[in-house]
Amino acid sequence: MIGIFDSGVGGMTVARAIEKICPGFPLVYFGDIAHTPYGSKSPDTIIRYSKNNTDFLLEQGASLIVIACNSASSTASDELRSHYSVPILDVITPATIKAAVLTQSRRIGVIGTRATVQSDIYRKRIQEIIPDSMIFSQACPLLVSLVEEGWLSRRESKMIIRRYLHPLRLKQIDTLVLGCTHYPLLKHLIGPRIGHRVKLIDSSVEMAMAVSDFMEQNADIKHRLEQSRSQQSRFYVSDSTEAVENMASKIFGRPIHLEKVRV
Amino acid sequence: MIGIFDSGVGGMTVARAIEKICPGFPLVYFGDIAHTPYGSKSPDTIIRYSKNNTDFLLEQGASLIVIACNSASSTASDELRSHYSVPILDVITPATIKAAVLTQSRRIGVIGTRATVQSDIYRKRIQEIIPDSMIFSQACPLLVSLVEEGWLSRRESKMIIRRYLHPLRLKQIDTLVLGCTHYPLLKHLIGPRIGHRVKLIDSSVEMAMAVSDFMEQNADIKHRLEQSRSQQSRFYVSDSTEAVENMASKIFGRPIHLEKVRV
Repeated sequence: MIGIFDSGVGGMTVARAIEKICPGFPLVYFGDIAHTPYGSKSPDTIIRYSKNNTDFLLEQGASLIVIACNSASSTASDELRSHYSVPILDVITPATIKAAVLTQSRRIGVIGTRATVQSDIYRKRIQEIIPDSMIFSQACPLLVSLVEEGWLSRRESKMIIRRYLHPLRLKQIDTLVLGCTHYPLLKHLIGPRIGHRVKLIDSSVEMAMAVSDFMEQNADIKHRLEQSRSQQSRFYVSDSTEAVENMASKIFGRPIHLEKVRV
Repeated sequence: MIGIFDSGVGGMTVARAIEKICPGFPLVYFGDIAHTPYGSKSPDTIIRYSKNNTDFLLEQGASLIVIACNSASSTASDELRSHYSVPILDVITPATIKAAVLTQSRRIGVIGTRATVQSDIYRKRIQEIIPDSMIFSQACPLLVSLVEEGWLSRRESKMIIRRYLHPLRLKQIDTLVLGCTHYPLLKHLIGPRIGHRVKLIDSSVEMAMAVSDFMEQNADIKHRLEQSRSQQSRFYVSDSTEAVENMASKIFGRPIHLEKVRV
């Protein structure tokens, strides 16, 4: 099974993209709703939750772990890699590679939660690839709440996005990384407000392509994942409410059964 | 010690009000930041967290428990009362009594988180006092995030509040209960938007008055609380970030040391 965890339902945009790009490989998803959101919490706490989530996915038979949460990827991925022997793919690396490939002006914007922006991980990773690139980051903490409330086209959402993006507009970026898995759901509002010439990078899609590439390059893992082909994808959450179930079904475009477990 | 718990820092408005109205009685506060917010979580999960919080406060020497969180009060207070022998005061009861006393038209509005509004507790409690009163509730899920981001006078905050209050304006209420401990911090925006003739009930202040009354009526508890007078108030959190510390100091108007503990 491909194991995927997120602080909530945002990571389902990653799960959905993996399902499309790697069809036939069953997923086991864990959304840590009981502790959501991670983005406003401390690194210690995020690391502790991320280990619990990984333990759970391994118990469920995952042979590959995808960290679908930017906040967890930025603060916990090194720790997880040193602690577990299973391959761990974080949602940040593929987006940074894509940004480095796409930019021409070498001026790149990144939006994310406070935890992600404070970790400064996008700047570090992109500058490892293009040392003289300029990275401009902006924390957009309210956007997760707007998505979770389903305010996907309200005037208030547009205004809040305009306010957050304003400093980035002044930096003349040519590429903007959507550094949070909730943000693709607001892409139609972000695009016009950052300017149509700025290329948007959807970390969910990049992550799914990276999983596909990883399987091609690691025959043993692919073989192990192929052995689980007969199984159905399973979706677990540490808490469940109607809003969460609606969001899951909205992302997948079909009813998704969420099983509540204690981790 | 007077034990107080909340899902986060919002309950500090209650702690601050108790400190003012019951001076000389030390507090032990627990803010469950690692699990914040409660308002979007399920009743089972909120009950589980509330029990953990109560256990912690009792270990710290609390002889009275104040549930400073509306979401926990609405979903977990009955459960806690049947489980513990120590007196448990919830933040909802005092505000409902005040609303019943103040209203003349018997048309009362209540705003709160989704969990609080779905529990329908304000309506039930107020109608126990005034059976023919009309209670109009409105969930305002984004307001907690706005407060936690410090957006206390932004144009977007005003618009969001106006949108949330619009249905209540049509109901010609004369009293509005701020059914979430974060909301007093937005009172200056809520007042003009609901109309100056509508009386706002600040559940933090009502809670503090209720604690004072409770002590007057329960000599044994007051005596036990008096024995702790030599101690300093202590503030614990299950997670800590800069934003949380800033908010705590803002509410108290002085630096507040938050001790991080695992509960």
